[in-house]
Amino acid sequence: MAKYAIKVIEYELPKATIIRYTVPGIKDIPVAARKLLIDEKCDAVITFGWVGPGLVDKYSYLAMSIGLIMLQIMTGKHIIDVTVHEDETNDPDELYNIAVDRAKKHALNLVKLLKYGGEALTKYAGKGLRQGYPDVGSLKD
Amino acid sequence: MAKYAIKVIEYELPKATIIRYTVPGIKDIPVAARKLLIDEKCDAVITFGWVGPGLVDKYSYLAMSIGLIMLQIMTGKHIIDVTVHEDETNDPDELYNIAVDRAKKHALNLVKLLKYGGEALTKYAGKGLRQGYPDVGSLKD
Amino acid sequence: MAKYAIKVIEYELPKATIIRYTVPGIKDIPVAARKLLIDEKCDAVITFGWVGPGLVDKYSYLAMSIGLIMLQIMTGKHIIDVTVHEDETNDPDELYNIAVDRAKKHALNLVKLLKYGGEALTKYAGKGLRQGYPDVGSLKD
Amino acid sequence: MAKYAIKVIEYELPKATIIRYTVPGIKDIPVAARKLLIDEKCDAVITFGWVGPGLVDKYSYLAMSIGLIMLQIMTGKHIIDVTVHEDETNDPDELYNIAVDRAKKHALNLVKLLKYGGEALTKYAGKGLRQGYPDVGSLKD
Amino acid sequence: MAKYAIKVIEYELPKATIIRYTVPGIKDIPVAARKLLIDEKCDAVITFGWVGPGLVDKYSYLAMSIGLIMLQIMTGKHIIDVTVHEDETNDPDELYNIAVDRAKKHALNLVKLLKYGGEALTKYAGKGLRQGYPDVGSLKD
Repeated sequence: MAKYAIKVIEYELPKATIIRYTVPGIKDIPVAARKLLIDEKCDAVITFGWVGPGLVDKYSYLAMSIGLIMLQIMTGKHIIDVTVHEDETNDPDELYNIAVDRAKKHALNLVKLLKYGGEALTKYAGKGLRQGYPDVGSLKD
Repeated sequence: MAKYAIKVIEYELPKATIIRYTVPGIKDIPVAARKLLIDEKCDAVITFGWVGPGLVDKYSYLAMSIGLIMLQIMTGKHIIDVTVHEDETNDPDELYNIAVDRAKKHALNLVKLLKYGGEALTKYAGKGLRQGYPDVGSLKD
Repeated sequence: MAKYAIKVIEYELPKATIIRYTVPGIKDIPVAARKLLIDEKCDAVITFGWVGPGLVDKYSYLAMSIGLIMLQIMTGKHIIDVTVHEDETNDPDELYNIAVDRAKKHALNLVKLLKYGGEALTKYAGKGLRQGYPDVGSLKD
Repeated sequence: MAKYAIKVIEYELPKATIIRYTVPGIKDIPVAARKLLIDEKCDAVITFGWVGPGLVDKYSYLAMSIGLIMLQIMTGKHIIDVTVHEDETNDPDELYNIAVDRAKKHALNLVKLLKYGGEALTKYAGKGLRQGYPDVGSLKD
Repeated sequence: MAKYAIKVIEYELPKATIIRYTVPGIKDIPVAARKLLIDEKCDAVITFGWVGPGLVDKYSYLAMSIGLIMLQIMTGKHIIDVTVHEDETNDPDELYNIAVDRAKKHALNLVKLLKYGGEALTKYAGKGLRQGYPDVGSLKD
């Protein structure tokens, strides 16, 4: 998924330095994010994780999520966490499309937060926008 | 939901400065709250999150909740967390009303805590008051 | 529930200063406890929470519990957490009695820990004592 | 369960000072362990907890476990956590035997770690040793 | 499982000093990792855990995982966590093979991260590589 996000970031932030860090499993993501944010002084991190369908996979997802949230609280920097769950669909093509769509949209979300700050996404709030799926629309205007 | 809460806060605390920060997903809420409480020196935060019906959505809710609680413990400041779960009802109109009611009531709760401190809500304790639903009443007087 | 615990504490520790802090929901309890233990320099906290029957309610309970435990580890002070779950019984009268019994017994537990230290409850260990229900007795003498 | 563990420790480490600390519920164990490790400067803690069969009991177990693990990470000292779950068996006698066996074996584990360090248990690794039950043997030699 | 990983590490990093630390249960792993990373100044840790099939076993796994992730965030060092779940298969021989395969592959992952840094595994990302099972292949090229 990373290459689609990298394309978005390179296009939107052409002067940005992008550092990749690949880990064996999703539970290794938080320490990699920590190295990037603290040791490498990156401004933000976007992570890509693939989660299996089992209960243990979901617990690993939960542990990773808690770790990433604590790290963000410690550093005050965004970690946009792009996760695809194998049980979102049984169709491999659809799963691939979900992953690509989610990676691209979240890369753009991150760019907007970095470029324009915390109000950048306000106009999209409550609009039922989805990453990985078509948008669902807002409940009321 | 934010606009209903903002109206309440503006009415009750007309001199307050309100800063909005919109994030892509609920797991991004804790770092935004951290930026508001620590970097922006806000006195409190009220968050608005929309949670899907799946198990993974609920795990994300759990991770977010743990993060917000740890952040409150670190800062000693209130973060009132207004969350609406898509599976609270199948009726979109009802879900909308739940969200609005919950946002307004929790905004008022936050105002009371900020204005009058920890005893402000004591007279309502055990009265079965609900946010998002009609109150249920107390078990005994 | 608080008033029953307060009566016990006032009777057992007549010189104690009791500070109440009421919050909108159980996830707001840890920050209130933090304010009492650190800002107000209280020696201990006893919390009263009412937890709904749904999965999300239980996740909120879990997040609150993790927060309270981390706060106790940070401060080295006891937070006795009195929680009543709405699904403990379908009978409102029984639920009320559980709440009152649990509040009183845990208030007394806290008093004993504060007055006599960590060995105060040793003689009751393994005796099957319950808070909110009749005691169940020990497995063997 | 404590008395069986104490006997083992007194026999194996006759010069050790043993401090007991009894708490009302399992969620109170981490703060007691914290007082023993930090305030009382104990070298290690062994905890004894009794966990009910319900989902909430298991969430309390989870919260306690997270707290004890964080405390061990903070202090660098072992907390051996002896827990018996009421739903391990329906036979009270068997449950009693599980508790006693587990308490004794874990007390001995702790003694070995304290006396001989991190390699003390290496020869038993992968041997299918169980605490509370008969050993199950290793998969292969 | 440890001996298979040790062989890989000794072959790949012949000058490395390897310290073993064996603990009674998986919840004791984080403090041992902490001692190795902080007290013994190890560059990394690889852990081997055996997890039972019950819900409580999985909660212990979750607590351990959260602890290991927090420790990695604190230290900025990798802890590669090799876990085998008894319910992955009913066939003891297959379980044994899973354990050995996973231990070897993760030892090699760790070696690559230590030798070549965060880009060492990038060429394998999204290829559907598995530890403990045959690789599943990527969704698309």
